[in-house]
Order: sequence, then C-alpha cells, then structure tokens
Amino acid sequence: MSTETLTQVMLNAIEEELIIAVTQGHRQELNNLYAMMAYHMGWEGEGAGVEARGKRIRPLLVCLTCAAAGGEWEKSLPAAAAVELVHNFSLLHDDIEDDSPIRRGRPTVWKKWGVPQAINTGDAMLTLAHLTLLGLESTGSIQSTFQASAILQETCLELTQGQYLDMAFEIENEPSIEAYWLMISGKTAALLAACTELGGLIAGCSQKEQQAYHEFGHTLGLAFQTQDDYLGVWGDEELTGKSVESDLSTGKKTLPILYGLHQKGKFYERWSQKPISPESVPALAQLLENEGAKGYTQQAADLLTRDALQSLDTAHPKGVAGKALKSLALRLLNRQG
Amino acid sequence: MSTETLTQVMLNAIEEELIIAVTQGHRQELNNLYAMMAYHMGWEGEGAGVEARGKRIRPLLVCLTCAAAGGEWEKSLPAAAAVELVHNFSLLHDDIEDDSPIRRGRPTVWKKWGVPQAINTGDAMLTLAHLTLLGLESTGSIQSTFQASAILQETCLELTQGQYLDMAFEIENEPSIEAYWLMISGKTAALLAACTELGGLIAGCSQKEQQAYHEFGHTLGLAFQTQDDYLGVWGDEELTGKSVESDLSTGKKTLPILYGLHQKGKFYERWSQKPISPESVPALAQLLENEGAKGYTQQAADLLTRDALQSLDTAHPKGVAGKALKSLALRLLNRQG
Repeated sequence: MSTETLTQVMLNAIEEELIIAVTQGHRQELNNLYAMMAYHMGWEGEGAGVEARGKRIRPLLVCLTCAAAGGEWEKSLPAAAAVELVHNFSLLHDDIEDDSPIRRGRPTVWKKWGVPQAINTGDAMLTLAHLTLLGLESTGSIQSTFQASAILQETCLELTQGQYLDMAFEIENEPSIEAYWLMISGKTAALLAACTELGGLIAGCSQKEQQAYHEFGHTLGLAFQTQDDYLGVWGDEELTGKSVESDLSTGKKTLPILYGLHQKGKFYERWSQKPISPESVPALAQLLENEGAKGYTQQAADLLTRDALQSLDTAHPKGVAGKALKSLALRLLNRQG
Repeated sequence: MSTETLTQVMLNAIEEELIIAVTQGHRQELNNLYAMMAYHMGWEGEGAGVEARGKRIRPLLVCLTCAAAGGEWEKSLPAAAAVELVHNFSLLHDDIEDDSPIRRGRPTVWKKWGVPQAINTGDAMLTLAHLTLLGLESTGSIQSTFQASAILQETCLELTQGQYLDMAFEIENEPSIEAYWLMISGKTAALLAACTELGGLIAGCSQKEQQAYHEFGHTLGLAFQTQDDYLGVWGDEELTGKSVESDLSTGKKTLPILYGLHQKGKFYERWSQKPISPESVPALAQLLENEGAKGYTQQAADLLTRDALQSLDTAHPKGVAGKALKSLALRLLNRQG
C-alpha cells in the first residue's frame, strides 16, 4: 500500500469515528446543540464539506504514529477522534475569545448562534473528546486507557495555559522570550506531542520510543510555529498563500517581534509608535532584520526542525506508516522530503 | 463525634484539597490565570472569604456518602474537590452566558477580567477537575478510578445538555414539560447524582447500594429544583430570603409557569402579553393557582422528596455520617429533620 492510500484509508476511518463520537448522548430535544457541533466540524450547514473540516492532521498523527510504532492503527481511532475534538473545542472557544467572525471560510459558531450557546457547545465538545478517549478500553487495557486519559487531560491544561498567555500578551508591553516559548508550547506543541505519544502508547511500544514520539510531536509543534512566525514577517505571499507582513501591521507579538522589542533599538522605538501603516511595514521588517531577529528566528526554526526529525529517527518508525509520518512532518515544516 | 463536628472536619479537609487541586500546573508566568481561579473560588481578591465560597454542598455530599457507605472519607477527597471544581466551572461559564455581573455578592470573573479570559479560566478549571479526580488512584484501584472518571465525564455531558436547554428555553415559546425535566436533570440533578454515586463507589459499597445512592442524589436534585420553582412563585420572601414572584416578572420558564402555559387558559393569555408589571404579579400567580399549577408543582416536589428519602433509606447509610447525610438532605429540601 502506498503512503497516500494508507493516509486516505485512515482519514476516512477518522471521519467515521468522529461522527460516532459527536453523536454520543444525542436525543431529539438536543437537536440544535448537536447541529452546532456538526456545523463546526464541517459536516452540516451552509458551506459544509472537505474545505470546512480542516486537514485532520492531529488524528492522522495519532493513527500514523500508532502504525509506525508497530500497533494496529484501528485501535487508536478513539484517541484520534479525541484529539481532533479537543482541537475543535479550542478553535470554537478561541473564535469567541479572538472575536473572529470567520473560520475556514464560514461564519463561526458564535457568529451564527451567539456567544452563550457557542461557549456551551465548546464545553460539550471538550467533554465528548474525553468520553470518546475512554473508548480505548474496548480494545486495550484499563491501565493504558487511564494513562491516555491522563495525557489528554494534562494536554488540555497546557492548552488553556497557552491560551491564557496568548491573550495576556496582547496587553503586556514586552512579554519575555521564555513566556513566548511557554505560550506556543501550550497552544501548539502540547496537543501535537499528545498525538504522537498517544499513538506510541496505544501501539504498546517501549518507554524510550514513546518518549521519542512525544519529543517528536512537541518539537514538530515548536518548529512549525516558529517557522510560521518567520513567514509572518518575511514570508513570500505567493508561496505561503498568506498576506505577508501581516504580523507587523496587526501588532501580534510573535518570536521575531519579541526578539526585536527586547533589543531596545530602532525597531523598538518605531514599533512602539502605533499605529503601523501598511506602507511602513517593509522598512520595519528591515529594521527587525538589521537587529538580528531574522537570523535568530531562522536559526530557532532550523534547530527545532532538526530536533524533531532526530526524535523521529530515534523512535524508529516502521513501514509505510513510518514513511507517511516522516513525509507529513516534512510537509508541515515546509521541507522537501 | 457529632454530625456538626464531622461536617466541619470534612469541610476543612475539602478546602485544603481544593487549594491543592487549583494549584496544579502553576508557575510564575501564569500567576494571573491562577489568581482568576482563586478569586472565583472565594480565596483571593476583594470580598474573599467564607461568604464568597458558596456552601460546598457537593463535595460534602461526596465525603458524607463515602463515610455513610462504610468507606474512609479521606480517600474521597480528590472526587470531592473534582465535583466542586466542575460546579464552579459551570458557574463561571453560566455567568458569562447569562450576562450576570454579580456572583455571591462580588463582581463575576468576566466582569473583572473580560469575557475572553473568563471563558478560558472556566476551561482550565474544568480540566483541573478531571485531573484532580485521577488522584483517586493513589489510594484506590485503577479500575474504580476509571469508573469515577467515566461518571464525572458523563455528568459533564449532561450539564452542558441541560445548559443548552436552559438557554434554548429563553427563545422557545412553550418548551414541553418533558424538555423541562431533561433540563433540570442535566443542570441540577446530574452533578448531585455524581456526588453520591462517587461517594458510594469510593467506599466500595455494593452495586445495589451504589445505585440507591445515585438515585438519592438524582431525586434530591430534582426535588430541590422543583421546590425552588414553587418558591419562585409562591415563596414567602421573609422565609426564603429571595424576592417573591420574581420568576413571574422575569419571564423565566419554571415548572409551574410551563404547566400553566400548556393549559392554554387565562394565564397563558395574560402571560403572553408582556411585559408583566410588578403590580400584576399577584393576580397572575392567582390565575396560575386556579389553573392547577400550584397543586401540580407541590405534588411533584412532594413525590420527588419522598423518592429521594426512600432511596437514601434503601442505601442504608451508616453511623454519624449517615445521620449528617440525612439532615443535609432534609435541610436542602426545607423539611424538618
């Protein structure tokens, strides 16, 4: 079987598992609650379809890791569905917290149904995630299901801590670089680390391999975010599909910008005199580069990418799934496989 | 030991356990996240103190049931802390959803720190609840900890379903009486049922007793809510400390009001012509009584109270804790012990 075929088979199974997961506890009186969840998952309502679902990268990481670690990936489906529901819970609440009216090209749940119902729908989705995970027990031991549950709960705590910091950064003048790493560790890396660790745990691989898979997911998340921050200032719009320099005009405190602020040089002076007009962005990006932020961010992204790929090698991923896992990682890191 | 002394000893231990629970994962960069939780729990900030904490009835139910079922109540402390954190998570989000500026005489978290941080703080508290529960494993089996975790997760799903219905009722003209029972089952009874069931489970009592404790908590919740609905229309302000007839002027859809609406009589006609002035409330309450709603609600409350006390008897609660449990139930139900 090719890596593409395996990936597609997994994605189909994941989607089926997700639908079962989100149907738990449904009854007629609750139709609209479940409709809000199905809308957010991209299955129902205007604009439903593959585009509205997102890429399902996290559950795919769970299944691929499980198979690459020598396990039967079908057994990891409850965990795969659970991490995707945690991810979607966090998007649902983030959209309210960030006042975002659009998600994946469609109105957000709070925009369609109001903030009160959207908050509660997110709470329901988080709960369904944890309930779904307990389904691991039907093919695995209570011991490993318990461990999986603890891993996912710890991950959710890190997620909320990261989200707290992200929001706190908006009103803080100069958050520390340390706080930045803690923030992306919680917001981006923790859930990816949980995906790969859960995959290894369910496969029943050795402690050492499980730890290596955890490290792989964690550094993959940090590398991805660091590179995203780099592209947010110096990205090529035609390649990334995102509008370049937006991080400088929105005032978002990403890694290169924080690095620049801490230099207390010309960038700091200019950036502090808000608002920043679109015309002044190129000059500001140049100041940032002059003061070493471009090199610093690029180096951090390179080191983390190297660490991620090394951890993956240490875990000895096997077979077609192992190949697919590596190529997924390279794709996320914008490196050629 | 008297029932009062036992209760006080338990309440002190519960408060200590809660403080440990809410400190999990704390580090300096996250000070303000943990300060928001400590504020909501009544420990910190302006107005902190016993009044701001609430009565801790749910964790007390866990510990008392555990002891009354023949267990060591100290072992149930992680579950006691967990249910209180779930309760407080739901209050935190409810306050945002209901746009309530005041909770226990103090500004709500969203009022002090804004909606985005308040949503996320609730998410963190819910996660801490489930993590805390896993601590049962240090003195119990993985098997029973797993069961406890599943019980609490199922309960959270019911809570969000109940909250969904409560909010949906605001815009529905005439929700069915069935939907009303489903709503209070989720919003009020589910967590009380979890408290008593968890207490029994941790004590290691028989399946039959555990089921009876579950029934006791569930019907106690329904009876309490039904009586609260009764008092919301026909309560004596001097006795209840609440302003009487407020449910008629606020337009809240409680049991007697729903019953009245479904009669499609004079009450229905008059109630549909909003707004309802404070002066017209006594006449409206009389219409409701004439159409049978007072008798219906009183009878429902009486039946549920009888069921709750019968279930408690079936569970054979033992010793001082058993007495304290019964007197707590009678106090909640406004009956003399």
